Amino acid sequence: MKAMKLDAYDGKAPFEAFDKPDAEPGPNEVAIIVEASSVNPVDLKIRQGAAPVGPDAPRVLGCDVAGEIAAVGEAVKGFRKGEAVYGCAGGVKGRDGAYSQRMVCDARLVAHKPESLSCREAAALPLVAITAWEALVDRAKVQPGERVLVHGGAGGVGHIGVQLARAMGAIVHTTVSSKEKAAIAYDLGAERAINYREKSVNDYIDEETGGEGYDVVFDTIGGPHLEKSLQAVKVNGRIVTTVGGGASPDLGPLHMKNARLDVVLMLIPMLYDQDLDLHGRILTRLARMIESGSIKPLIDERRFGLEDVGAAHEYLDSGDAIGKIVIDIGENADARPFPPLR
Amino acid sequence: MKAMKLDAYDGKAPFEAFDKPDAEPGPNEVAIIVEASSVNPVDLKIRQGAAPVGPDAPRVLGCDVAGEIAAVGEAVKGFRKGEAVYGCAGGVKGRDGAYSQRMVCDARLVAHKPESLSCREAAALPLVAITAWEALVDRAKVQPGERVLVHGGAGGVGHIGVQLARAMGAIVHTTVSSKEKAAIAYDLGAERAINYREKSVNDYIDEETGGEGYDVVFDTIGGPHLEKSLQAVKVNGRIVTTVGGGASPDLGPLHMKNARLDVVLMLIPMLYDQDLDLHGRILTRLARMIESGSIKPLIDERRFGLEDVGAAHEYLDSGDAIGKIVIDIGENADARPFPPLR
Repeated sequence: MKAMKLDAYDGKAPFEAFDKPDAEPGPNEVAIIVEASSVNPVDLKIRQGAAPVGPDAPRVLGCDVAGEIAAVGEAVKGFRKGEAVYGCAGGVKGRDGAYSQRMVCDARLVAHKPESLSCREAAALPLVAITAWEALVDRAKVQPGERVLVHGGAGGVGHIGVQLARAMGAIVHTTVSSKEKAAIAYDLGAERAINYREKSVNDYIDEETGGEGYDVVFDTIGGPHLEKSLQAVKVNGRIVTTVGGGASPDLGPLHMKNARLDVVLMLIPMLYDQDLDLHGRILTRLARMIESGSIKPLIDERRFGLEDVGAAHEYLDSGDAIGKIVIDIGENADARPFPPLR
Repeated sequence: MKAMKLDAYDGKAPFEAFDKPDAEPGPNEVAIIVEASSVNPVDLKIRQGAAPVGPDAPRVLGCDVAGEIAAVGEAVKGFRKGEAVYGCAGGVKGRDGAYSQRMVCDARLVAHKPESLSCREAAALPLVAITAWEALVDRAKVQPGERVLVHGGAGGVGHIGVQLARAMGAIVHTTVSSKEKAAIAYDLGAERAINYREKSVNDYIDEETGGEGYDVVFDTIGGPHLEKSLQAVKVNGRIVTTVGGGASPDLGPLHMKNARLDVVLMLIPMLYDQDLDLHGRILTRLARMIESGSIKPLIDERRFGLEDVGAAHEYLDSGDAIGKIVIDIGENADARPFPPLR
């Protein structure tokens, strides 16, 4: 089957198509006919050599996958050939990537695809949704009626963060960089979308929270937004960031506020081969919320095929995309529902 | 009644004795005949003007108190005149301090003194014990069988941290700076006391945890120990520090480990006048653990009276003390039990 590989992690080597031999699943694995994948910042970092967690040669990247099960390992329970699944299941250390027509992965990393989504919609979700879930559900434990601030509410992780916090009963404010993104954030359920280029943290803390600050701040962007998160959180509050690497914020504000900082890296189960079923469990619960209408993916309008993965990476790097960038790989990427087996 | 005051928060003004008029307790307050107080680093910082949280003139410092209730406000429940109490109840913004023969404080901040302790022993505990409690019980939520590393296990907060983590079923390792302090840490229940001057973090992580790191790291010292905490914690682990102000650690290790950093400031209820009953509840449960023998105070051998509070501050600043420095204020500071009213 066709797949895309890199000859090196140097940011220069292009993605090249090659004929990848079909591997059969091991006892705890499934083989998937890949219908769609999507692009995440970590894929770019791996390609550039900035995140030393890439898979070995032939270096097939791609974490997110949605597709149809082609074969099931002998110890796997709960999945059958022909069923549609989605997951963040490969593309890092020792694991087959999804920029490929066929991939083999650990069955515990995937879950049944929500029937109401096409594969291209489902492939947009796993990495960003698991990240937001770990941040807001497992770490911050957002409570009903709390005020939650999401930095980057129209972004990949952010757009799920806004919807998830809202679905948990929180009052969600978000920072964005344009009117267009503000409109998207409101559509996703934000009560307030703040243009951070036009308003200082102190101003919106005063105006929106009476100077008290937010119970939870979820930083999906990093850099100056992490420092701003320390300002924006209230006394006894919680901050979760997905972008701690390279940052060295002054912890003084955390100290004076008796506050907490969580740094989430959702790749941990794949990198350390531990708690793999965590991903499958989160995606199963996420699927229920998708079916009930509380969460939907935000997907950029541009379309990319398997051989366009390099262009898709460039597009993500440009910062011009709105929502997730999906790679259509199979012929059924657009089909919904797919396939109605169960 | 006699009390000690400062004319300024400049680090130079001496403590001066003065005759402080007796105040009667407000509806939610109690008046306490102070038998003993103790010295904490925050008192030094307030005196130096480094922590802008000192009480207004006449600037009577002293957070920790143990003594006998002299009068009870009309709305106070659960306390009677003559009962012995202990607490971290004043010496900051808007609150009367304990370097005084009599103080008035909010009744929710204190609890009944453990009968098995004298007032001088009880006065050593509140600030450090509430800090350790918030760090290990409320924040880290230490679980039985977890490996906990306490930086500074023979120090004020650290010696309670070692005992509390041990009482929660954890395996407790601690870093100390001398053989003498190592012996103390073993006596307090540490399974391993590591001299951080003789061993690198990587070495003790390898030797003591097989390279895995600690489930929980409790940093009671700050500075380089905070950076070391980020190294010493395991994947998915939790760090709690009491000394975040002024630190700007690189968060990269937190990110790669999907880890958490909590910064604890136990003064919050007193500074913001919120959740005051948190302190009373913690001290009530602490008292039960003291009576059952799981926790005991570590008190330096040198004795100081009320007029020696300046010398006590100097002694704390010297770093030569072993355990808490107590100020004996009343005639019954040494009595045990005191008084057996209930």
